[in-house]
Amino acid sequence: MKTPAFLSDYMEGAHPSVLDRLVRTNQEKTPGYGADDYTNRAAELIRAACGCPEAEVFFLVGGTQTNATVIDALLRPSEGVLCAQTGHIAVHEAGAIEACGHKTVELPAAGGKLSAETVRDRCAAFYEDGSRSHMVRPGMVYISQPTELGTLYSLEELEALRRVCDALDLPLYADGARLAYALACPENDVTLPDLARLCDVFYIGGTKCGALFGEAVVFPRKLRAPYFFTDMKRHGAVLAKGRLLGLQFEALFADGLYGRIGQPAQQAADLLRGELTRRGYEVLPDSPTNQVFVRMKNEDLALLRETFDVGLWEKTDDSHTVVRFCTSWATKLQDVEELLDTLPGS
Amino acid sequence: MKTPAFLSDYMEGAHPSVLDRLVRTNQEKTPGYGADDYTNRAAELIRAACGCPEAEVFFLVGGTQTNATVIDALLRPSEGVLCAQTGHIAVHEAGAIEACGHKTVELPAAGGKLSAETVRDRCAAFYEDGSRSHMVRPGMVYISQPTELGTLYSLEELEALRRVCDALDLPLYADGARLAYALACPENDVTLPDLARLCDVFYIGGTKCGALFGEAVVFPRKLRAPYFFTDMKRHGAVLAKGRLLGLQFEALFADGLYGRIGQPAQQAADLLRGELTRRGYEVLPDSPTNQVFVRMKNEDLALLRETFDVGLWEKTDDSHTVVRFCTSWATKLQDVEELLDTLPGS
Amino acid sequence: MKTPAFLSDYMEGAHPSVLDRLVRTNQEKTPGYGADDYTNRAAELIRAACGCPEAEVFFLVGGTQTNATVIDALLRPSEGVLCAQTGHIAVHEAGAIEACGHKTVELPAAGGKLSAETVRDRCAAFYEDGSRSHMVRPGMVYISQPTELGTLYSLEELEALRRVCDALDLPLYADGARLAYALACPENDVTLPDLARLCDVFYIGGTKCGALFGEAVVFPRKLRAPYFFTDMKRHGAVLAKGRLLGLQFEALFADGLYGRIGQPAQQAADLLRGELTRRGYEVLPDSPTNQVFVRMKNEDLALLRETFDVGLWEKTDDSHTVVRFCTSWATKLQDVEELLDTLPGS
Amino acid sequence: MKTPAFLSDYMEGAHPSVLDRLVRTNQEKTPGYGADDYTNRAAELIRAACGCPEAEVFFLVGGTQTNATVIDALLRPSEGVLCAQTGHIAVHEAGAIEACGHKTVELPAAGGKLSAETVRDRCAAFYEDGSRSHMVRPGMVYISQPTELGTLYSLEELEALRRVCDALDLPLYADGARLAYALACPENDVTLPDLARLCDVFYIGGTKCGALFGEAVVFPRKLRAPYFFTDMKRHGAVLAKGRLLGLQFEALFADGLYGRIGQPAQQAADLLRGELTRRGYEVLPDSPTNQVFVRMKNEDLALLRETFDVGLWEKTDDSHTVVRFCTSWATKLQDVEELLDTLPGS
Repeated sequence: MKTPAFLSDYMEGAHPSVLDRLVRTNQEKTPGYGADDYTNRAAELIRAACGCPEAEVFFLVGGTQTNATVIDALLRPSEGVLCAQTGHIAVHEAGAIEACGHKTVELPAAGGKLSAETVRDRCAAFYEDGSRSHMVRPGMVYISQPTELGTLYSLEELEALRRVCDALDLPLYADGARLAYALACPENDVTLPDLARLCDVFYIGGTKCGALFGEAVVFPRKLRAPYFFTDMKRHGAVLAKGRLLGLQFEALFADGLYGRIGQPAQQAADLLRGELTRRGYEVLPDSPTNQVFVRMKNEDLALLRETFDVGLWEKTDDSHTVVRFCTSWATKLQDVEELLDTLPGS
Repeated sequence: MKTPAFLSDYMEGAHPSVLDRLVRTNQEKTPGYGADDYTNRAAELIRAACGCPEAEVFFLVGGTQTNATVIDALLRPSEGVLCAQTGHIAVHEAGAIEACGHKTVELPAAGGKLSAETVRDRCAAFYEDGSRSHMVRPGMVYISQPTELGTLYSLEELEALRRVCDALDLPLYADGARLAYALACPENDVTLPDLARLCDVFYIGGTKCGALFGEAVVFPRKLRAPYFFTDMKRHGAVLAKGRLLGLQFEALFADGLYGRIGQPAQQAADLLRGELTRRGYEVLPDSPTNQVFVRMKNEDLALLRETFDVGLWEKTDDSHTVVRFCTSWATKLQDVEELLDTLPGS
Repeated sequence: MKTPAFLSDYMEGAHPSVLDRLVRTNQEKTPGYGADDYTNRAAELIRAACGCPEAEVFFLVGGTQTNATVIDALLRPSEGVLCAQTGHIAVHEAGAIEACGHKTVELPAAGGKLSAETVRDRCAAFYEDGSRSHMVRPGMVYISQPTELGTLYSLEELEALRRVCDALDLPLYADGARLAYALACPENDVTLPDLARLCDVFYIGGTKCGALFGEAVVFPRKLRAPYFFTDMKRHGAVLAKGRLLGLQFEALFADGLYGRIGQPAQQAADLLRGELTRRGYEVLPDSPTNQVFVRMKNEDLALLRETFDVGLWEKTDDSHTVVRFCTSWATKLQDVEELLDTLPGS
Repeated sequence: MKTPAFLSDYMEGAHPSVLDRLVRTNQEKTPGYGADDYTNRAAELIRAACGCPEAEVFFLVGGTQTNATVIDALLRPSEGVLCAQTGHIAVHEAGAIEACGHKTVELPAAGGKLSAETVRDRCAAFYEDGSRSHMVRPGMVYISQPTELGTLYSLEELEALRRVCDALDLPLYADGARLAYALACPENDVTLPDLARLCDVFYIGGTKCGALFGEAVVFPRKLRAPYFFTDMKRHGAVLAKGRLLGLQFEALFADGLYGRIGQPAQQAADLLRGELTRRGYEVLPDSPTNQVFVRMKNEDLALLRETFDVGLWEKTDDSHTVVRFCTSWATKLQDVEELLDTLPGS
């Protein structure tokens, strides 16, 4: 088997401090389904980190189930969710949103980011359309931070989206599967309290950000789904040994770890981007975070793939392919150097 | 917080050998979604233990999501699943099956067990009904081994169900959330190879049987759902770090551990049943496995609840309540003695 | 083909005054989807007949689609609808409610009627159950007036249901597929204004009561589903030539016809019940309306079936069968006499 | 109220021969749900007209319910339906397909037509994508004949689609809501037998083509959904007085009426197109059938709207709007002249 390094940001297990906590508490007995003290403390730490003491916090296992559960809970039957055409829910969740009965209304999005204008124009077109009562009603807005293409919404962009959502009475939901990598990026100017202030609901990714698994859903103010726990159960999204989620997020938030955990990924990605650029590779300019997209000649790619298992993103023409390199909290600079050694042009 | 011991069989973490394997491999890098060697080996071990070398094996996180994914994959749109009225899918999954568009056809079931006669009679009534084209068609049969009431299907009962299912062309699906506790019970005469021979699909429970989480779905012969992995994804039931499931089931099946892991639970339950009976408590006779149901006077219950958090099963009259005590692979005989010390009548 | 008379109450076309109106307006041009004056007037007439000037009225084509659309619009994702185990939605709609993602919570019901006590007790059991967050939440109550067994809720029974629904904050929904036959029955003491006062939503059946097809949904006070028209569209329940529904209900309500249209059915049913009883047949006592249930010896039934196509309801033992005779607005007393002539014992 | 002429092709009632048949049979008694001789004969006539004597034919009420029922019956859970981005199911059915749990995969389509190349390329991209097991699988192809934009698939185009569908093992489904207008168009070279030969399932529209309502679904060879009637029931798509559908289609197919019924619409549309062009209006070139799309100056439109209620299709800039004029089987040339009289430039 070839080295899978850089294939994704979920190739390793858990951050040592997360794993350590699981090991130390392993023999304890606690009630199931998140009705334990670890889970309560994790929720409390997240409320504090987000500056929203009234927030309701729920812990789920994975991203697709989180998106489906949240979106299903917020939409009325004939409503759909507006999203970027590259959004995870539109492309890589096997129709999980449609399985709940809802349309993903896919909108053009430069660099994977949905602009306030796009949302506003699409909704204006809907409200001006005489046939709108025969059409799927815009019911909420889904964004990812960072996006699936590694890009970041700026605070200004997010505030513009919020104003449009307010004007249209649309809940705004942010998928933070890779949120730690946004927080670790120098270009980022959106903090956790900003997200809590500007979104109606968002989730803080654990799976890709140092946990074995787990995502924390935050309703910063009002719980828009009164029986959200039961909605989770109905989606098969309640973990029996719920404390495992509490323990992991407690570890991630106990001492501000979540704010730092993405730094090794950022350093590794920056090193990789810098070196590849220096060697004349075409690094796609959009992503400043832990995903590095490079347009490579197919012969260079073939060479690389003798050693590494890499993520093919897109064939751009017969002789070039865009490749994604993904770094994580566990990536070492030495891993990057090994990768670079494999590539011609050093 | 009161001692939650005996509240359920998912209060502890993982069996030491499971945890150890997770710890030792934590820093390794593997591809996601189960495309790793640990997962392959776990599937191979399960095939061997079940005596079905051609089986397709899939690993999911929890029981409700497993049931919903399997049942949704096997039924046609207007079909329903026949089950005991006490079946988990009928009572405690918050409508997860209906969320997939399918009716749970709830049938009377003594001791939580669906009999071959009940299935046969219900289907006969359906096929004799002139309005059957307006009715939900029986599409599959769901059973649990052990049942939600701790009882066991005998091999003879299971073979009778199989014959009825063959005659009616109905797939038979067994929910093995607590399967290790069946295997550890002296009364049990149904082996893993028996299950594989008699069911079209079943799952081997990990969550309650020594894993942190995880359930292994086995299609012993023919994969009745050609895109089952994608069906899993659509249900939010694919774990990103899929190897975590492979590692755990590898540990559970590497040296026959799964066949033994329920023994401490059985010993503890037997001790509890014996002592309670000796002291004059009314132990309900049906369950021979790790769930002990006791009809208690409310004053005894009140005393018990000063120390223990216990599972109230059913009020039988104004002065009595049925209480469930659940033992697990991690229960110690000393735990039982502490419980017994709390109860009057020693 | 044998005479199908008495097989159901939807064997004929439309009442002459309904048909006449369709014929006279056939060449007119009107906008689609119910945005026409006929539909507006029909709604106005229904509001007047129900004494609820603020009501929202919608016209759909058939009963199953009406039930599915209303119930789907009113329930939250993890809620179910409480109904009699003999309720149409539970038995004869091929899982249409489950297809919307919701459980039909089937309750015991004497004579097809759900009692206030049954609803109260089931909900009390739910709210006392420590596992209720894992269970389908009672979200609304479905009844039929008359029921599927021809019985009637008395005003007192309906008021008791209303009080229970108020106490539990549950919407009460009445399926009036055969409502005209309730209104024509001397035993009935529930008027249209009573229904409007006591239900959150109900429908006035057209298909079985003189229309070619059509059901009028009435939300007497508050529209509990803000985008109900779009919900209808999503269920395929919007008729393109919507005026056809308006025209028919205008005819049915223009001069109080709906209150009288069931009388021929009542007279025919009463004649049939009386004569059968006089001849020693076992007429089941419950139904006072247009459905007559008779327990017959199989040899009498065989004789009858030489001439008539009849509805077999239930085999009660090896030598007897319950047969349903259904009369309609179009049944003539002479039809009953022909039926009686076929039966022995005259 | 302004004259709604040209607003749609479902503004009138039924063709006189359809209505006459409903009137003449009104008092007859027949069994419900389509189990009557009229329905059998209608199916037989359709089989003959389509040249597919083995076909299974089902009658439903309206287009959206037909599309949802057919598509839901043919797709597996994680499959989606490929369609033009302007397809009725993608735009104007309020998410009815998603309500069944399936994604409408919207593809670019010139003039509303999905090309064989587009389908092939999209599926090729899917099969080449390493992440395809996380994506909605292409499960069938939906087209409309004529399309929502009035255009027609040529026989050559349809055969090319068929070849692609064969290569990909995808069922091809044609929505024939306006099929009579295709058959009446001189440009059309696709006959009913062609459709039957090239599609796996299609429907023959009644609602817009001379019936009060009704659509006939034809599975020309193999019934791909073994319990399609029950699937219909589950979708609320079974008409109780099923003979009404049989009677209407019997009238439409008894003497080849369906092949001629669109001719008045074609003549009216041709007259309108010709005159508008002659007067210098910008008639959009694509549609040769009964839908006429005209780009008008807003001041001309304002004048027109003083008298006529017209269908606004699209604002193309601040001073121009595309307007749709729809003719029907009931449109008279005099109607067109009245419309033309209203417009400046005569």
